[in-house]
Amino acid sequence: MFRIGIELGGEHTAVGIVDDSHHIVAVRETPTVSKNGVDALLDDIAASVKDIIAGSGFALSDCRGVGIGVPGVCDTQSGLVRNANVIGWDCVPVSEKLKQRLGLPVFFSNDTDCAALGEVVAGAAHGFSSALVFTLVTGVGGCFIVDGHIWSGKHGLGGEFGHVCVQMSGGAVCSCGKRGCWEPYASVTGLIRQAREAAQAHPSSALNRAGELSSRSIYAAAASGDVIAQGVTAQYAVYVGVGIVNFINTLYPDVVLLGGDIVADAGDALIKPVLAYVQSHVHVDAVTLPEIRATALGKDAGIIGAAALVR
Amino acid sequence: MFRIGIELGGEHTAVGIVDDSHHIVAVRETPTVSKNGVDALLDDIAASVKDIIAGSGFALSDCRGVGIGVPGVCDTQSGLVRNANVIGWDCVPVSEKLKQRLGLPVFFSNDTDCAALGEVVAGAAHGFSSALVFTLVTGVGGCFIVDGHIWSGKHGLGGEFGHVCVQMSGGAVCSCGKRGCWEPYASVTGLIRQAREAAQAHPSSALNRAGELSSRSIYAAAASGDVIAQGVTAQYAVYVGVGIVNFINTLYPDVVLLGGDIVADAGDALIKPVLAYVQSHVHVDAVTLPEIRATALGKDAGIIGAAALVR
Repeated sequence: MFRIGIELGGEHTAVGIVDDSHHIVAVRETPTVSKNGVDALLDDIAASVKDIIAGSGFALSDCRGVGIGVPGVCDTQSGLVRNANVIGWDCVPVSEKLKQRLGLPVFFSNDTDCAALGEVVAGAAHGFSSALVFTLVTGVGGCFIVDGHIWSGKHGLGGEFGHVCVQMSGGAVCSCGKRGCWEPYASVTGLIRQAREAAQAHPSSALNRAGELSSRSIYAAAASGDVIAQGVTAQYAVYVGVGIVNFINTLYPDVVLLGGDIVADAGDALIKPVLAYVQSHVHVDAVTLPEIRATALGKDAGIIGAAALVR
Repeated sequence: MFRIGIELGGEHTAVGIVDDSHHIVAVRETPTVSKNGVDALLDDIAASVKDIIAGSGFALSDCRGVGIGVPGVCDTQSGLVRNANVIGWDCVPVSEKLKQRLGLPVFFSNDTDCAALGEVVAGAAHGFSSALVFTLVTGVGGCFIVDGHIWSGKHGLGGEFGHVCVQMSGGAVCSCGKRGCWEPYASVTGLIRQAREAAQAHPSSALNRAGELSSRSIYAAAASGDVIAQGVTAQYAVYVGVGIVNFINTLYPDVVLLGGDIVADAGDALIKPVLAYVQSHVHVDAVTLPEIRATALGKDAGIIGAAALVR
């Protein structure tokens, strides 16, 4: 038997056939056309599902069900997707509508939460039942997996890990308009801001010759021996660590994963100092500290996790 | 059928018979004598259980099982109580040892977590499946209940909500030795420190005529119209709110409870400004905000919650 995993993105939608060992057997990517409304987009998705199943020599009856990751607030209690602004959806009963089209049970969750679940069922957190997964990108995403399930809170409104206050007085301005959230410190946007400030203060730093500042160019400057860039990346690891310590102190999962291009770019140059900070700052003794690992599945995580919503 | 709920405290141990409606049918309190070792104390507790059952006209066979709340780290995965310094226990297989004495299944959890569970099964959070329960006392305790179960993290090491960093730079010193934890701001100890500083800075404040500063005397001074005391309690509500907002943003439970004598002393003078802060600072719209309530069961919560560990 198979499951269908769908990653519905703002620009592209990926439909995958996933086997019971969480391997993607076939995948099909199509443009996301949201301008014609909810039903037209769901017609496209259902057609894509039928195409890939037929093209792979299977039938719908070979599938246990469908899981879909959606870029919005996923209120599974009410069965509604809310505030999915990038595709213009609000209050959409996605499971009901897709079930009408496919005749299979349909489950849904937030897209980044699906990627986190994918890492737990088949990636860097495989074999663990609880995990915290943080994605360091333009913002900071986070997902708490407990007993193998996504915990997204009442009406899907939790999971805003980037907006935890770590500096209630005099904090940096966040994209949400408030001050002192974790995000302006621990996001890639935050790293670039910190590097830009350091570069301006130190004209001789290699950061001024790195071209456009990015996580890659900043970590490359640090690796080349530039002490100013090394100071920036060391401070950034502390900022990332502050948030991780907070969530270990409260939730103490089996494992903590870090994802986002920056983790691939920086590798141990990020993970190791973060781990050192966490070890020396966590509230309880660090003997049984959760491991801190990089995510492993890349862009497959979303499809695998969406399929894993089907239990 | 009944369940036995035990609250093992540093000075007293309370044993209760609890019915299937979570009512305490009988309760018996004895001094906790820990100086003679683990087995002697467990002999005392087992004798107390047998006494109260016999004295109430029941038999052990009328009981589904026993739940015990212990003042330490409760590693239910390993079956061991760790770091229960107040009773001198470390690495004690409490369930196994008590089962040997009583012939009933025995479940255990941290004592404050049991009190939180009691509020969920029969108190202020009754009817909700997820809750965050914060206790504002000398320190700040916290417990996350998810799907009706205590989430205490890997090896019982989570739940240190008081030690979440809310001021990573220039924060107040915490009892744990670090700076910027939530606890020195939101604990009663923190309130008293803030009131003492305000009193010293403002000799005419009623806080200087309040006798020994306590949550009761500080809120009484504020209620009497003293603007300095009102400033202290207003700022304290912000500090409490900062932490609550953090945990709503991430975990978004159905309900948030506040416990501790200060909540009884201050009542709406604490709850209302905390709620106002939370409503204006939570990341998502506040329409579906979890209610913020005072705990309701008082000292019965620990026994009722311990009994509720027996499923």
